[in-house]
Amino acid sequence: MKAYKEMSKSELLELKNELEKKFEDAKGKGLTLDMSRGKPSKEQLDLSNDMMDVLIGSSDMKAENGMDVRNYGILDGISEAKKLMADIMGVSSDNVIVCGNASLNIMYDMVSRAMLFGVLGSTPWSKLDKVKFLCPAPGYDRHFAITELFGIEMINIPMTAEGPDMDMVEEYVNNDESIKGIWCVPKYSNPQGVTYSDEVVKRFAALKPAAKDFRIFWDNAYAIHDLYPDDKDELLEIFAECKKNGNENMVYEFCSTSKVSYAGAGISAIAASKENIEQILKIMTIQTIGYDKVNMLRHVRYFKDINGVYKHMEKHAESLRPKFEAVLEIFERELSGLEIGSWISPKGGYFISFDSMEGCAKDIVAMCKEAGVTLTGAGATYPYKKDPKDSNIRIAPSFPTDEEMRSAAEIFTLCVKLVSVNKLLENA
Amino acid sequence: MKAYKEMSKSELLELKNELEKKFEDAKGKGLTLDMSRGKPSKEQLDLSNDMMDVLIGSSDMKAENGMDVRNYGILDGISEAKKLMADIMGVSSDNVIVCGNASLNIMYDMVSRAMLFGVLGSTPWSKLDKVKFLCPAPGYDRHFAITELFGIEMINIPMTAEGPDMDMVEEYVNNDESIKGIWCVPKYSNPQGVTYSDEVVKRFAALKPAAKDFRIFWDNAYAIHDLYPDDKDELLEIFAECKKNGNENMVYEFCSTSKVSYAGAGISAIAASKENIEQILKIMTIQTIGYDKVNMLRHVRYFKDINGVYKHMEKHAESLRPKFEAVLEIFERELSGLEIGSWISPKGGYFISFDSMEGCAKDIVAMCKEAGVTLTGAGATYPYKKDPKDSNIRIAPSFPTDEEMRSAAEIFTLCVKLVSVNKLLENA
Repeated sequence: MKAYKEMSKSELLELKNELEKKFEDAKGKGLTLDMSRGKPSKEQLDLSNDMMDVLIGSSDMKAENGMDVRNYGILDGISEAKKLMADIMGVSSDNVIVCGNASLNIMYDMVSRAMLFGVLGSTPWSKLDKVKFLCPAPGYDRHFAITELFGIEMINIPMTAEGPDMDMVEEYVNNDESIKGIWCVPKYSNPQGVTYSDEVVKRFAALKPAAKDFRIFWDNAYAIHDLYPDDKDELLEIFAECKKNGNENMVYEFCSTSKVSYAGAGISAIAASKENIEQILKIMTIQTIGYDKVNMLRHVRYFKDINGVYKHMEKHAESLRPKFEAVLEIFERELSGLEIGSWISPKGGYFISFDSMEGCAKDIVAMCKEAGVTLTGAGATYPYKKDPKDSNIRIAPSFPTDEEMRSAAEIFTLCVKLVSVNKLLENA
Repeated sequence: MKAYKEMSKSELLELKNELEKKFEDAKGKGLTLDMSRGKPSKEQLDLSNDMMDVLIGSSDMKAENGMDVRNYGILDGISEAKKLMADIMGVSSDNVIVCGNASLNIMYDMVSRAMLFGVLGSTPWSKLDKVKFLCPAPGYDRHFAITELFGIEMINIPMTAEGPDMDMVEEYVNNDESIKGIWCVPKYSNPQGVTYSDEVVKRFAALKPAAKDFRIFWDNAYAIHDLYPDDKDELLEIFAECKKNGNENMVYEFCSTSKVSYAGAGISAIAASKENIEQILKIMTIQTIGYDKVNMLRHVRYFKDINGVYKHMEKHAESLRPKFEAVLEIFERELSGLEIGSWISPKGGYFISFDSMEGCAKDIVAMCKEAGVTLTGAGATYPYKKDPKDSNIRIAPSFPTDEEMRSAAEIFTLCVKLVSVNKLLENA
């Protein structure tokens, strides 16, 4: 394959002509494919079908401590659910609170509480002139949406193959008191699928924040979401590392079963130090009477323990692998050597991250839309939806069928080519 | 029966002696009874046993609009659940958002959002020097806990047999811009069981608040919780009244199925004007991906429609009636004519409100505790837990069995007598 940038103007024009014909054909097919969100497919949801049956007849609705899960009571979740979520994160049950169906809501609540009540006695963030968060980018759009809503200034931190640029993170966190947090998806990061190296985790744990109320928002959304159970990334457990530095209060960790059981009806959890948990519970006891313990029991009865969860995740991997591999195979076949884009082959998570030539991402997404393929908005992976290079595109292969995924990837690569040719011609 | 205050000192001393003996006997029984919270009994929870079976096998997990409820999507709840909750409140589905298992959490979120983001463009309450709420009292302790947490000043408003003292409410709301809200339980109020009269609802709807961001927090927790289905209180629907005054933005209404299906695993909802709903959704879309739609579908499949709910509530009434009647009968038998306390016979809700002689409530609750009967803390029904007369005690008859409830009521009346005698002797 000849790199596009090596082509002459007339070669590019000829190619443009050919690609435009193909694009018209593709449009003619009238496809409607959605690769915009990391939604599990029906096949994946069906994996948990039997979960609806484990509490039939309400013959035994008691938690292991004898409490009737249908009634009021227990703020931090039934102990067997705490254990299950603790095992997913690799932490102790004592440091866990089990909440509702969306870990996003816990993250929102954590920021909201810090704004209103401060963190372990600090000034409420809403009373400060300036509050800033570091945002490794590309990253998760919903994280950035929360900080934006609260008027928190977001600072881009480039991602490397090992995780966020830690020189920059240390420089900011250890010197600037207005830096109050950082958003991290430490395993199979959204969207790149990068797992933070041991070195990166250790450097996080060893931070010496200028602000006492600085917190790492450790969104371990894909803790057990391996595509290759025999070749999975291992993430160093951060609380153990923090302990070595006397830094346990610095991390809030989040996880959920949204991509284990049901996207809309799972359970979620936060892990934190004893002191942080105490502060959270003190406010949470005013906020709610307790989260849905019936659903917690349902999850524990169905999965039994962490090994049940692991087994279940292998089924998810089986369902997801062909889709990821189809996309990567088509990218390889269609784009390799053209030097008009790069991508990462993730070993887990829910996304494939694609980087086009600079200034092309918006046009590619728009062109895909025209041909019936919906992608996450270009820029969405950056704070304020502003991708400085207009090049990152997040591809979510989980929801469509394998066949649909192949069609979508074909159209995507076609659009990448066409937009790139146009870009090169502009500058020719 | 001779009123205690008519007794001579020697009569009182003799009585004291006799009551103390009875109290020692009662203590000897080693009872442990809990009448502290409005918790449904096991018998009541079992009424919904079949609800766990309606989604067996996941054969049909689609909402009426075709959406798979197990997946992400729909922020305001599936339409059939919106309809069900709208019917419980007597409002239109368009004005409803269905949320998680605790309406308390919606109320907390509403106050929290007003603090951080203001109300329809107003200054965020956290930026104001002074924010005050009116608190009809006795009232619900968890309401007062929310406003206290946020540092909102609470002002007691006396309750009458018709609802809050509306002269006072109008005086405050229509003249003082720092009054931003009022907590109301308009039907079978907690703890008195008072249903606001039509006149009171109309006066609420016709308020002319000095503060544009004043909101009525209309916690319709007992909207359909009648003890006597053939003789129930009727509450005027407030939004229709507000409409007549162009005041629809002034009310947030809340309800839940916590005391319909499961206390810990029901669904909850908020009703509000179109403009309010729009503001809520704008923030909620950042806060969460959506609430548990599987549980919403489970509720709708089980109850089918509002008539199914009404039928179900008759079963709750059957279970609750004997307990309420036992308490009232024992109060009548033991306390009538003694002039040492008064109580209200409610036609619904979860509580019986008792008023002792001034300065006796704390002692009565402490003495009951000594004999193994746990009551809601004295003062809990007032803002800051300060009952100015130290006389209101909330009795929650739902959780114990009928038999236990009788024993508890006997001990309670005994403690009322003994504390009253002691009080009279103190002043004799």
